[in-house]
This record gives sequence, structure tokens and C-alpha cells, in this order.
Amino acid sequence: MNRREIAINKLKSLGDVILDDVTHGRIPRIKVPSRGTSNIIYDEAKRHYVLGDRYGTRSMGNVKQIKKIGQMLYTANFCKDLVAREKTATLRELYYISEGWEVDFADQQESNIVGEDLEVTLGMTREELGLMPEEDGASVYGALTVREGDIEIDALRSGKSGYNISPTIDEVEFVDHDVERVIAVETMGMFHRLVQEKAYKKFDALIVGLKGQAARATRRFIKRVNEELNLPVYICNDGDPWGFHIAMVIISGSAKLAHVNHQLATPDAKFLGVTASDIINYDLPTDPLKDVDVVRLKELLHDPRYRGDFWKTEIKKMLTIGKKAEQQSFSKYGLEYVVDTYLPEKLEAVENQ
Amino acid sequence: MNRREIAINKLKSLGDVILDDVTHGRIPRIKVPSRGTSNIIYDEAKRHYVLGDRYGTRSMGNVKQIKKIGQMLYTANFCKDLVAREKTATLRELYYISEGWEVDFADQQESNIVGEDLEVTLGMTREELGLMPEEDGASVYGALTVREGDIEIDALRSGKSGYNISPTIDEVEFVDHDVERVIAVETMGMFHRLVQEKAYKKFDALIVGLKGQAARATRRFIKRVNEELNLPVYICNDGDPWGFHIAMVIISGSAKLAHVNHQLATPDAKFLGVTASDIINYDLPTDPLKDVDVVRLKELLHDPRYRGDFWKTEIKKMLTIGKKAEQQSFSKYGLEYVVDTYLPEKLEAVENQ
Repeated sequence: MNRREIAINKLKSLGDVILDDVTHGRIPRIKVPSRGTSNIIYDEAKRHYVLGDRYGTRSMGNVKQIKKIGQMLYTANFCKDLVAREKTATLRELYYISEGWEVDFADQQESNIVGEDLEVTLGMTREELGLMPEEDGASVYGALTVREGDIEIDALRSGKSGYNISPTIDEVEFVDHDVERVIAVETMGMFHRLVQEKAYKKFDALIVGLKGQAARATRRFIKRVNEELNLPVYICNDGDPWGFHIAMVIISGSAKLAHVNHQLATPDAKFLGVTASDIINYDLPTDPLKDVDVVRLKELLHDPRYRGDFWKTEIKKMLTIGKKAEQQSFSKYGLEYVVDTYLPEKLEAVENQ
Repeated sequence: MNRREIAINKLKSLGDVILDDVTHGRIPRIKVPSRGTSNIIYDEAKRHYVLGDRYGTRSMGNVKQIKKIGQMLYTANFCKDLVAREKTATLRELYYISEGWEVDFADQQESNIVGEDLEVTLGMTREELGLMPEEDGASVYGALTVREGDIEIDALRSGKSGYNISPTIDEVEFVDHDVERVIAVETMGMFHRLVQEKAYKKFDALIVGLKGQAARATRRFIKRVNEELNLPVYICNDGDPWGFHIAMVIISGSAKLAHVNHQLATPDAKFLGVTASDIINYDLPTDPLKDVDVVRLKELLHDPRYRGDFWKTEIKKMLTIGKKAEQQSFSKYGLEYVVDTYLPEKLEAVENQ
């Protein structure tokens, strides 16, 4: 069975459970794994958040739950149709399309949650069910050829802004590559710098421009190149709690998406900077930490994803010096410095760790 | 002379003016066209904002202006070096690189303003001087082939997310096309809908995903396809003051960029909806106007760019019904409705206007 057939079968099975209950004179019910905080567990072996084994039951016998079950079944039916017709819809479209249903949604938050309910109940991602986020994926530049349908795309020949990861990244095949690693950077400014300085050649690397917080499609892409192509992944972000966390969500997933982290997290990805040590060693231009930065750094100290010595040391050091620095601050030493000096030094240090 | 040589000459001329003053024993001074509100004029013939003919003089004889002149000359020298080496830098990098200069910038706002001072003084865009914004350009899908350096890119074979407009759009050559019009949409959700429903075939169109407020590179791209390829441009945005204004800045430019609107505005581009009339005629799902929407709509009524009957009528109608609607709300009638019904009806109406 291919992925589409699996999705259709799983979606149908949701209806079968209801039909089976009805046929046997039982009150229809659906088991939905709990996404409450107490059921979100950091799995030390897997090195990302997972869902525990607690679940709730939605029953047609409970008047409060009837509408929710109706929404789930309508949405599942809509998704089955999408997948069968090889289409996708945005979460926004799902919300609007429900206007034509007998059980519509009060707002998009409600329809998004039903989308997540389906994900967790069926053990498939929203994307596999045809539901796409609005958000854009990252830009990719380097010696990688992919196939989308019957079209082959060379990420070295897609223009200066590179190949754009589409929300349907799971339908993309990796055809060929000639790189040894992936270097992801937080901003498109740094992406263009690395492309311009030919960092893809110098480091035999795919350059990935994350555009801030990485979209689900970007995280899925990074996991796939790491696992399927066996490429080490390095993430070079701003030296502040937000840059750290953009990297960490790629590495260890988010608590909110515990039920799909096994498809999104790349636990072997490594943070390549900017660290508090870099701020000192490279004498970087800095900004003082704001109160909100300090609060966030202290939160990270208590987050299980940051339990390694490296993170504890760097977070404490940043709190001590009271300063943060952006990736682009290396241009103090000239535009080429980040590619000619910083990245080679950091890559050597991290690869020999 | 090619564009690079012109830029280098213009940048050098700034230094020549100073040298000439010094050689002749005069106090060095630079004339900078005024960007103050009173010098920003809506040009009825050109149908966009332009700068008037007032200018200020910065003189080394005025102690307050010495630093500003120093910043301009350092920045011009940096830009000359960029253009000569066929490189670009982000505005953020310009800010950081000034740390190595004898006259640095207090913050990025200051360096951005000096970038604009250079634009207006030399009559060239920042991009022509090698200074790039951080922002991403739009996505383009359809039968257009472009050349970036020695690489040809087919926007029908760049993947589902299309060809990504890079900040260096002026270096992109149009090689070939087989389309009759351009349809730009506000969100990537709608972009993916149009690609999926093959709107590029159905309407012989380039589909452009604006990603909200259009980047300068996107506006430049739209102007170039309109003028160089002689393609009519239609903009289909959300039915609210923000959607209107995203379209209007593409059509008639912004006041802030009056000095470069002749390179960015596309006065012949047409708004294709969503209008207040559409909300009524298509019985769209709506949200009530918020206070901030009402304030903004009333501002638009007094904006010279909205002086046409079409806009006056639609803005007043929206204020009367007190409702707004998003592009994606057409999915109330099914995912295909916007391509099968709405766009054909609107295109026919607008093309026969």
C-alpha cells in the first residue's frame, strides 16, 4: 500500500468504528489519545517529546461530545475525498468549507484542533491527510536533485533564492545529491551570504534558509535528508534564546506536536552557533539581553531538551555576560568572515566533538 | 555602459563633488533631495507618488551634518566596492560592517536612512547599489523562463512552490514566456489553490503568491513583466483595507518610496477583488469590521490613490455593510469554486471595463 492508500484506509476505519458500534446496538465512541500536558513525555531514548499512552473517549452518549464527533467525521470524510483526488487544502480552507456542513466550526482554532485530533487518533500527520499549513517552507541551495511528480528540480539551478520546500514535502523524492552535510541558517540574509560566498561548494553543503521558526515541512525535509541521505545537519542561528529554540525544535521537536515528533525531530542535528562563547571569543557586536530574553533563557535551563552540558554552560554564560548577538554581526570583520573563518572553525570543532 | 558601471560612476561622483570642493578651497557640501511630506507629490499623469524638486544641502561647515556626510561617503565607498565585486549585502550587514568604520551607526534605522539618502541623491535604487532587504520575494508559477547568470529557470518546472523572486531581480533576464496575463494573490494558501486547480493553464497566467505586503523585488518583478512582456496584471486579495492596500502599493507605489516609485509602481495593474460587492453577490462568509478596519477604510477614502469611482464606491459599501471577507472564504462553495466560477466572472468583468 502506498501512503495515499494507507491514509484513505485509516480515514475510512474511523467511520467503520462508528458503523460497527451502531450495527451492534452500542453507543458509538472514538478513542482519542490525550494531548494534555501530563501525557506529553520527553523520551530519553528517542531524544524528543512523545505522547504517553493515556487517551480519552468521545461518546455519542455524552451530549457535549456529539458535536465534536460530528466535526471529526465530517473532517475525516473531507480529508478522504482530498486524498482520493490527490488534492490538498489549507487549514483556512477547511475552516471555510465547513460552512457547508451541518456541523460547522465556531472559529479556525476549533477546526485546527479537530485536525490535530485526527492526526493523533489515526497516527498520521495532517499533511498525509491532505491538510496543509499556510506557512512557506525553507529555501534550499546546493547539489541536490529532487522529483516532484514528473518534474526533476536541481537545487543548484533554481535561482539565487534556491528551491522552495513546499508543504507537500513527503511527496518529494530525493533523486541525487553530491553534498556531505547540511548547514541551516536562521535568516534569508545569511542564506544569501552563504550562497554568494559559495559556502555550498566550500563545505560540500546544502544551504537551508529557515526563515525564522522552521515550518513543519522544513523540519520534515531536514529529518528526511538526515535519515534517508545520511547527511549530518548543522544549524547556525542567532545567539539569543530565540535562535537557540529555533534550532532545538528542529533537533528535539516541540511539546505541542509530541504526537508527530517521530516524523519531524532530527535528534542528531547539531547547533553550530552563535553561542555566548562565540560572543566573547569573536568579540562580536552585541545587544544587551532584554528582560524577556532573561526570562526565556531561565526557562530553557529547566527544559529537558537543554539538559546537556553544552547547553547548560552556554545559557549560563549568556546570562552572566548579559549580551546577545546576531548571525550577521560577523560582518563586523567583513562580509566573507563568516564563511572564511567562523564556519570552518566551528565545523571543525563540532565535527570532532 | 551597463547598470554596474553606471552605479560605480554615480557612487564615485559623490566623492568627486567633495574632492572638487576641497581642491577649490570651498566647504564641501552634498545636495540631497528632500523626502519630507511636503515634497512628496501624487503625480496625476504618472499615477504614482513622486518626489518634488525641493532639496536640502548637507555641509561640512555645519558641525551637526559632518557625521551624516561621513556616513554617506563611507556607505557609498562600501557600495562601490560591493558593485565592483558583483556582491550584495543586506541592510543588516551594512549596519554591522560600519562597526569597523570611523563613523559608525547608532542603530539600523540610522544606516537604513543613509541607504535611502544615497538612493535619492544618486537617483538609483538601493538594490542597484548592492544593498538588499532581508525580505523574501514572491513565488511565481507558470510558463515563464528566466535567466539568472548562466542558469535558465523555468517557473513551470521549479516545484509546486514555484520560482522564488530573489532580491536581485534586476539582474534576472526574461528569456521566454507563454502567458497572457499575471494573476497575483495575497496568500500562499491561495497560490497553492490556483496551482492545484491549474489556474495557470486555464487563464494562460503567471500565478504570483505575494506573501502579504509585496516586497520591493516583487513590485519590481510585476512592473517588469507588465512593461517588458506587455502582460496585464490582476491582483486578487482579501476583501479588507489591508488587502486593498497591498494591491494599491503595487499599483501606485508608496509615499515613503516616492523617489523610487518610477521603478516599482505598475499603474495599469487592476484589482480583481475581493470587494464589498463580492461579499454581497457571492454571499461570502465574513467577519465584522474591527474599529481599526473602519479607521483604515476612512483613511483610504482621503488617499489620492483611491480617488477613482470604483474605490470610492467599494470602500463606502464596505463601511455600510460593516463586514470583510478573506480570499479563501470562497471555499464555502468547494475548493474549485474560486477558479471555476469567481475568477472567470471577475476577469471577464475587469477585462471588459
